Amino acid sequence: MSVVRNRKIPGFYCDSVRLMLLQRELAALPGIEDAGAVMGSAVNLSLLADAGLLPEGGSPSATDLLICVRAKDEASGREALQQVERLLESGERTSGGYQPRSLQAALQMLPECNLVSISIPGRFAADLAEKALELKRHVFLFSDNVSLEDEVRLKREADRQGLLLMGPDCGTALIHGVGLGFCNQVKAGPIGLVSASGTGLQAVASALDESGSGVSLAFGCGSRDLSDEVGGLTTIQALQRLEEDRATGAIVLISKPPSPRTAARILDTARSLSKPVVVDFLGQAPPAERIDNLYFVSTFSEAARQAAQLPEDRTERSAVDSAGFASGQKLLRGFFSGGTLAQEALQILKIYSPDVQSNLSGSTREEQAPGAHWVLDLGADEFTSGRLHPMLDHRLRIERLLRSAKNPQVAVVVLDVVLGHGAHPDPASELAPAIQETRRVAAADGRRLETVVLLVGTEADPQDLEKQRSEFGRAGAIVESDCRSAISHAGGLISALNRRQPAETDVNLLPLDSPLQVVNIGLEAFYQSMIAQDVESLHVDWRPPAGGDEELASILSKMK
Amino acid sequence: MSVVRNRKIPGFYCDSVRLMLLQRELAALPGIEDAGAVMGSAVNLSLLADAGLLPEGGSPSATDLLICVRAKDEASGREALQQVERLLESGERTSGGYQPRSLQAALQMLPECNLVSISIPGRFAADLAEKALELKRHVFLFSDNVSLEDEVRLKREADRQGLLLMGPDCGTALIHGVGLGFCNQVKAGPIGLVSASGTGLQAVASALDESGSGVSLAFGCGSRDLSDEVGGLTTIQALQRLEEDRATGAIVLISKPPSPRTAARILDTARSLSKPVVVDFLGQAPPAERIDNLYFVSTFSEAARQAAQLPEDRTERSAVDSAGFASGQKLLRGFFSGGTLAQEALQILKIYSPDVQSNLSGSTREEQAPGAHWVLDLGADEFTSGRLHPMLDHRLRIERLLRSAKNPQVAVVVLDVVLGHGAHPDPASELAPAIQETRRVAAADGRRLETVVLLVGTEADPQDLEKQRSEFGRAGAIVESDCRSAISHAGGLISALNRRQPAETDVNLLPLDSPLQVVNIGLEAFYQSMIAQDVESLHVDWRPPAGGDEELASILSKMK
Repeated sequence: MSVVRNRKIPGFYCDSVRLMLLQRELAALPGIEDAGAVMGSAVNLSLLADAGLLPEGGSPSATDLLICVRAKDEASGREALQQVERLLESGERTSGGYQPRSLQAALQMLPECNLVSISIPGRFAADLAEKALELKRHVFLFSDNVSLEDEVRLKREADRQGLLLMGPDCGTALIHGVGLGFCNQVKAGPIGLVSASGTGLQAVASALDESGSGVSLAFGCGSRDLSDEVGGLTTIQALQRLEEDRATGAIVLISKPPSPRTAARILDTARSLSKPVVVDFLGQAPPAERIDNLYFVSTFSEAARQAAQLPEDRTERSAVDSAGFASGQKLLRGFFSGGTLAQEALQILKIYSPDVQSNLSGSTREEQAPGAHWVLDLGADEFTSGRLHPMLDHRLRIERLLRSAKNPQVAVVVLDVVLGHGAHPDPASELAPAIQETRRVAAADGRRLETVVLLVGTEADPQDLEKQRSEFGRAGAIVESDCRSAISHAGGLISALNRRQPAETDVNLLPLDSPLQVVNIGLEAFYQSMIAQDVESLHVDWRPPAGGDEELASILSKMK
Repeated sequence: MSVVRNRKIPGFYCDSVRLMLLQRELAALPGIEDAGAVMGSAVNLSLLADAGLLPEGGSPSATDLLICVRAKDEASGREALQQVERLLESGERTSGGYQPRSLQAALQMLPECNLVSISIPGRFAADLAEKALELKRHVFLFSDNVSLEDEVRLKREADRQGLLLMGPDCGTALIHGVGLGFCNQVKAGPIGLVSASGTGLQAVASALDESGSGVSLAFGCGSRDLSDEVGGLTTIQALQRLEEDRATGAIVLISKPPSPRTAARILDTARSLSKPVVVDFLGQAPPAERIDNLYFVSTFSEAARQAAQLPEDRTERSAVDSAGFASGQKLLRGFFSGGTLAQEALQILKIYSPDVQSNLSGSTREEQAPGAHWVLDLGADEFTSGRLHPMLDHRLRIERLLRSAKNPQVAVVVLDVVLGHGAHPDPASELAPAIQETRRVAAADGRRLETVVLLVGTEADPQDLEKQRSEFGRAGAIVESDCRSAISHAGGLISALNRRQPAETDVNLLPLDSPLQVVNIGLEAFYQSMIAQDVESLHVDWRPPAGGDEELASILSKMK
């Protein structure tokens, strides 16, 4: 009949790799059937319970080390628990050599260190990261359970100093061939990666390697970087770093479902780069397969495939001509006869502005948001009840065109014109003069009004596609035959007219070009990984302040 | 000083094309500056108000015809209104020849008619569509403002009879070269279209035509077909019709944002077809670029491009081997060390089952839904607090593997194994024996347990990719290197094990192969379009029952 015995060591800190080793050594002792060595968190207690190893009585806290064994008899159990100190000491000796006890001491020993890797428990990690930033080092912050407020504070500070703070909860990064955290050994190549997802980055990097391509630089940003609170600070820094990096020809940008507003901000930055960017925002519907230099994909393997085949040279893009618009002109109006054309236009427009209103889903009415961009489906029930469909009757649109011409805020109007049987026999005969009049009214008031016609039809359609195209062109409209082109044109203008600063403030990152020298604080496994990768590095023999007693630590910190 | 004069004709029905013509003729009369001729709906009244034509006093109803003019003087205004009867009569004469007054009369004159096209006002349309179905004709129902209950009732009836009911609110269809509603003149070709969006279908058809490809058959389904209430009845009929159609080599499926549950059902049907299907569900994040025979796109132009390049021959797919599973085995468990790998797995799995639970977004806990499929990110904070990351410590996963082995409902387990620096030095040494044990436990209880390993790594990784692959293989696991392949395998099994019937009940559609013969009821423009397309057709001179007085109509209907 086996017995379960345990020992609690209050306030004793032990890193989790060492615990795993301890547990294995205990389990290998004679007469021991199973063993557990864990810090006393709730999850760990439930795991111990599942394994039938939960100590009776007492309620251990997260700062207590718990050691539990199931032994074949009382004597074996007692003997095993007596070995604990010896085993813990032997574990300490695994790293060998003298180890500094603080970041400051480590930096004196390794003054060329340009990056600090932190993987201590989250509740201690923010203070240490702050210290590393003060000492002007980039930070790779593996630790999770760091508060969102701390993350925002640290990232703003890093941004101010031109330093990268990758994380918290940053699983991986690859800097000039050196893998940090969990990182695959990937061939060097022309693809730069930016990711708010650790395994996503690893999956893409591994797939690139398998395809024969490779990675220049890969930055992890931490799982919350694309939340609205953080606002993508690290992602934007990383994108700009990759834009400057001469070895990088194309960029892959990965995130778990981002907040829509931050996603829009990030995509705006990505769109301003000269390099192609493959975007994999999980769970977010892509606006199109491609917008300007952005390529949207849905899976990691497709991200790698797409990036590997992108040309390394810069994407050609026609400059947006925003001359002639009066100040204050910044709004778009889209008047559609087709609901799904309106829907597709809307989804593409959101790349250029997150604030587009429509009657497609929302209950907002035009009068309630006159200062927003608007996409209207004029074929919706509220407009067609008791009257003709807008593909047959252009009056609604002509009225709205003229109303837009009189609105000093409107800069761009988009219309769809759908040809074919059943539709109006000659849309240009009515709409082209209205477009001309619209432009005339605006011009008389010193404004430019861009009109874009999305013309859907075939050469065999009864309306004569070529004649329609040329009449709209003569009226001064830009004519496109697919939604993406039409909206890219209109959206590019809107985006340029709404840009408050001439360009996003340049981030002035401290260089990361010299060979990486790393101070590691936390998991010894990551230090071993530096050694295995021939990186100049030091491991700090870190212990929680005041032995993990937070109250005492807080008093000590105030006494400094 | 101009004057505004108007006339109200209560309960007078007039189709909207005729109203538009009337309005133009009025506006062309001497001394008339502007004119409006509309049914008295709220939207129309506000348009009249905008145009400064709103009649004073009285509150017109939607069944009143309103005629308003702005004239340069009193005499011109009075004169114009006196012309109204004459103009209305002249409008009536545009169609020429004898016109039947009812559907029944029309069908006696055109007994080979196989399709009835209906575009009368929505409140009268459902009754007429029901009549057409009773008389065993397919229906193209352009009218909108038909109630959702009527739509469900009519579509169930159509389905039962093997008839297609396209609509309500169906803008377009293309049957053997004949365009219904609004439809482009598109070249014949190998692509079949199914769409809950009119202009979406037109945009794809026009783009196919431009690219040199063409269309076999195009079915509109009505804008609400993919709502949960309707459940995609018409879409499923249309997909099956295209599967049988010998001229169709590939299919494009289009919808405005569908309900997730109905989308899953439709995709399940699409996946069961032998032909490739390009899916454009606007606003819905694609699970992957391709799953089995499904190709996901985000824009109409990409849908056309993708479809045009798909091979016409049948997609090769390996049959799912579901032998060896005990009855009751139907659940999947995914245990991931990477959050975004879990996320990607989840999004792909939803193609195979809409009911996958996870700890990625929801607050549901495992204990609350033991009968659901589960994808767990074991790297989430709730699992890593105070313990090692699952890429280093496999205990959590080994426990869950063994627990799954004992659960008689579990059929498939998926794990990710991520190699690289920093990760466990030899995952297979611990996980492969656990997989073997898991299979042994299930087998001892007469069950097959499929384990799928998603192995992420490179050839240069310290763990030796090939050794890991072969050890997992020897333990009986299926090993894949990308998420889509891993989940396709697991999902295919789950889908097969959860299929209640051997196959979706076959729909037995009445043929539509003979040349189209159409009875048109409603917009004369659509009748003119039939004539222009050389289609054998008849126009019904329809008037609302009891002159549009619904109370009287209801009494008359009960007297039948």
